[in-house]
Amino acid sequence: MFSKVLVANRGEIAVRIIRSLKELGIKSVAIYSTADRESLHVQLADEAVCVGTARPQESYLNMKNILAAAVGTGAEAIHPGFGFLSENSRFVEMCEACGLKFIGPRSETIDLMGNKANARIQMQKSNVPVIPGSEGFISDVKEAKEVAQKVGYPILLKAAAGGGGKGIRRVNTAVELAAAFEEARREAKNAFDDNRMYLEKIMENVKHVEVQIFRDQKGNTVYFPERDCSVQRNKQKMIEESPCSIITKEQRKNLGEIAMRAANAIDYLNTGTIEFLMDKQHNFYFMEMNTRIQVEHTVTEMVTGIDLVKAQVKVASGEPLPFTQDNIHTNGYAIECRINAENPARNFAPSVGKVKYLYFPVGNLGMRIDSALYSGVTISPYYDSMIAKVITLGHDRHEAIEKVKRLLNEMVIMGIKTNQEFHLAILKDKVFLDDDVTTDYLEKTFLPKWKEEKE
Amino acid sequence: MFSKVLVANRGEIAVRIIRSLKELGIKSVAIYSTADRESLHVQLADEAVCVGTARPQESYLNMKNILAAAVGTGAEAIHPGFGFLSENSRFVEMCEACGLKFIGPRSETIDLMGNKANARIQMQKSNVPVIPGSEGFISDVKEAKEVAQKVGYPILLKAAAGGGGKGIRRVNTAVELAAAFEEARREAKNAFDDNRMYLEKIMENVKHVEVQIFRDQKGNTVYFPERDCSVQRNKQKMIEESPCSIITKEQRKNLGEIAMRAANAIDYLNTGTIEFLMDKQHNFYFMEMNTRIQVEHTVTEMVTGIDLVKAQVKVASGEPLPFTQDNIHTNGYAIECRINAENPARNFAPSVGKVKYLYFPVGNLGMRIDSALYSGVTISPYYDSMIAKVITLGHDRHEAIEKVKRLLNEMVIMGIKTNQEFHLAILKDKVFLDDDVTTDYLEKTFLPKWKEEKE
Repeated sequence: MFSKVLVANRGEIAVRIIRSLKELGIKSVAIYSTADRESLHVQLADEAVCVGTARPQESYLNMKNILAAAVGTGAEAIHPGFGFLSENSRFVEMCEACGLKFIGPRSETIDLMGNKANARIQMQKSNVPVIPGSEGFISDVKEAKEVAQKVGYPILLKAAAGGGGKGIRRVNTAVELAAAFEEARREAKNAFDDNRMYLEKIMENVKHVEVQIFRDQKGNTVYFPERDCSVQRNKQKMIEESPCSIITKEQRKNLGEIAMRAANAIDYLNTGTIEFLMDKQHNFYFMEMNTRIQVEHTVTEMVTGIDLVKAQVKVASGEPLPFTQDNIHTNGYAIECRINAENPARNFAPSVGKVKYLYFPVGNLGMRIDSALYSGVTISPYYDSMIAKVITLGHDRHEAIEKVKRLLNEMVIMGIKTNQEFHLAILKDKVFLDDDVTTDYLEKTFLPKWKEEKE
Repeated sequence: MFSKVLVANRGEIAVRIIRSLKELGIKSVAIYSTADRESLHVQLADEAVCVGTARPQESYLNMKNILAAAVGTGAEAIHPGFGFLSENSRFVEMCEACGLKFIGPRSETIDLMGNKANARIQMQKSNVPVIPGSEGFISDVKEAKEVAQKVGYPILLKAAAGGGGKGIRRVNTAVELAAAFEEARREAKNAFDDNRMYLEKIMENVKHVEVQIFRDQKGNTVYFPERDCSVQRNKQKMIEESPCSIITKEQRKNLGEIAMRAANAIDYLNTGTIEFLMDKQHNFYFMEMNTRIQVEHTVTEMVTGIDLVKAQVKVASGEPLPFTQDNIHTNGYAIECRINAENPARNFAPSVGKVKYLYFPVGNLGMRIDSALYSGVTISPYYDSMIAKVITLGHDRHEAIEKVKRLLNEMVIMGIKTNQEFHLAILKDKVFLDDDVTTDYLEKTFLPKWKEEKE
């Protein structure tokens, strides 16, 4: 087992990882930017190294400085958290070159799954159902039309090398297709020097359902009960639950086995999450794979009682999986609300400043608040606005919701604006309570109602 | 189910009860003394009524004012918490006379088990092993000598009506017995107008092990995994664990069945705890029964995932037990440290004043801090010094200890003295880590070492 690990991240996930390292008896090294000198992760770690100025490119994405910090402090491994360098295969290779273990999958896996077109092709090969669309790449407009006709409009044209919204076009009808295809292909060529395109049906009335898998070096593989992350704004998850309240035991098992098949096919190492869309008939369609620990891993931890970060560290150090499929039980129902420093009344504009007073309701059974906040800390404008994850576990969905409502009602964060009240409004909404939620619920159903009531 | 419940208590237990009521959708009424106007339980409850001045006799023990508050606010039931009126049978009768449900056992049960001599006799009748000593009362010195000879010295002479240390004498040898017996009997006669005496062997090298039972009106009875509360100072528990690390599965079942037999014999209602001493051969001896929720119920909640206060409310409202014995699982290992406002370096003198800064480490899996503290609250000298319970759940005892160490290292309470560092010292002590702990461990083994190191 490692004796010292560097955590290449900030905020709540850095704090969360450092805490698990402490419980494992492993020394932790924090990195920080000049804007984060006073941050909780810096205070909690055994050592801390400043790796650059406030801009992420200069600090949390500064591979050379981070590697120097790891080597200089004698760390044996790096935990990347999520975001920043967590899905950067070049960084993984650089870690290896420096003799450091990267706590995550192999660089080739990150490359393969990071390219959404290749991932799709790989999944099709592995007999994992994908979103209806092209098999492999589309060579011309004629082929695009044939495929679109078959799967039905609306469709999404996507550049194989896509990223940052470049080379993507929504196409609602056949008449729009030709122009959109040529446009997107030109854009892709210019942006990525790669004009390969593929096509997917745009699925409506679907839930976002995802399965976390874990796999060790010997190929032992397990899956965890699925998460339902359908409450989203701007493609960002806001509320996550586990398990999905409308999936049956048999469907869960089936979904888990699909996810394991996918993980085995790519010889996956460590933990990752396969994201699916689920239609009204409970068919699952592969969307993408996240090759890192995710924000919402916490609901899985609550519902299974398993510390996933500790398991990541163990598996990265060469140990076998610390659990088998038989050890993974679903003990009730967990829910998480992501608290952001933002103002919902002003179109969710980020809010920064000093937290003047803080009260976290920490008592009673089945709750957890993952956060780097403390009374007096300053929220800076440079990073993600997520400042806390409020998570509860109940015997059923109703109890989990009652608990998280209670926590949000009791929690006090003064000095900055947050989406606390906005969450409470969702938690009282009938559509949400009935779990009649699909990925367009928040923007199409809830937000218009909420705005009307505010006026 | 009730729609409104009055919580006749203060501090962390009042907060803890109010939180469970909220999650059940039941309105809560807090009571408070003039010293507690700013207390958290007052802020969290739906309503709050001032019932008197700071002195407990005038407020939290003021039965008439509390009943008036309950009737006046339309509460249908009273939860007494622990301490104060929780084991006062007269108060239970007064609740009934006012048409209020008392959330706890029947008044006769409280009377029966409150009288330690009668409780002992009752348990002997129910075939529950008791501490070796007299069967029933002792009529004279001659009989006392015979019994003491049989069970072996040292022994404890106890007044049947005992309380507050009156009418109790430790006797180390036969020559001391006659004088001690007459003295204690005279003292008991004067203090309680009842000179009946009984006698128990003083057991050494024993653990304090207790079993919580739950019983509904229909007589359904269950037991919970035992708690080991052997770390005590001045007969006050400081650290509690569940389960006891050295008890086998068979012994656990046997102990649970003894406890259920005791509960059934007295037609017990709601939850209560039977306290035993356990010797090196793992024999159990009945000590006493607590007819209320206890401070340390939290470790049982953590290890089983069951909210015991919610179950108390349900059973008091006439519902059947919300779980069966088969639902009660031991999911790992829980530990609790009681944080007191006191100064260990000055012989644990109470510490009062304003909490100037507070940081509770709330993240990660398997932790809970039950407390009425917040940044800015003032600890008053009128009440119990316990200000927080820090509780963790691990897969095994080692992990639970590592977690609670981490929490105590991260927790910041500024403005008052606490026993936080003292706990950390215990948690690093080899005797404690080896669980070689008996009830005299803290005072005989740990404290002398600790004082020496401090000097």
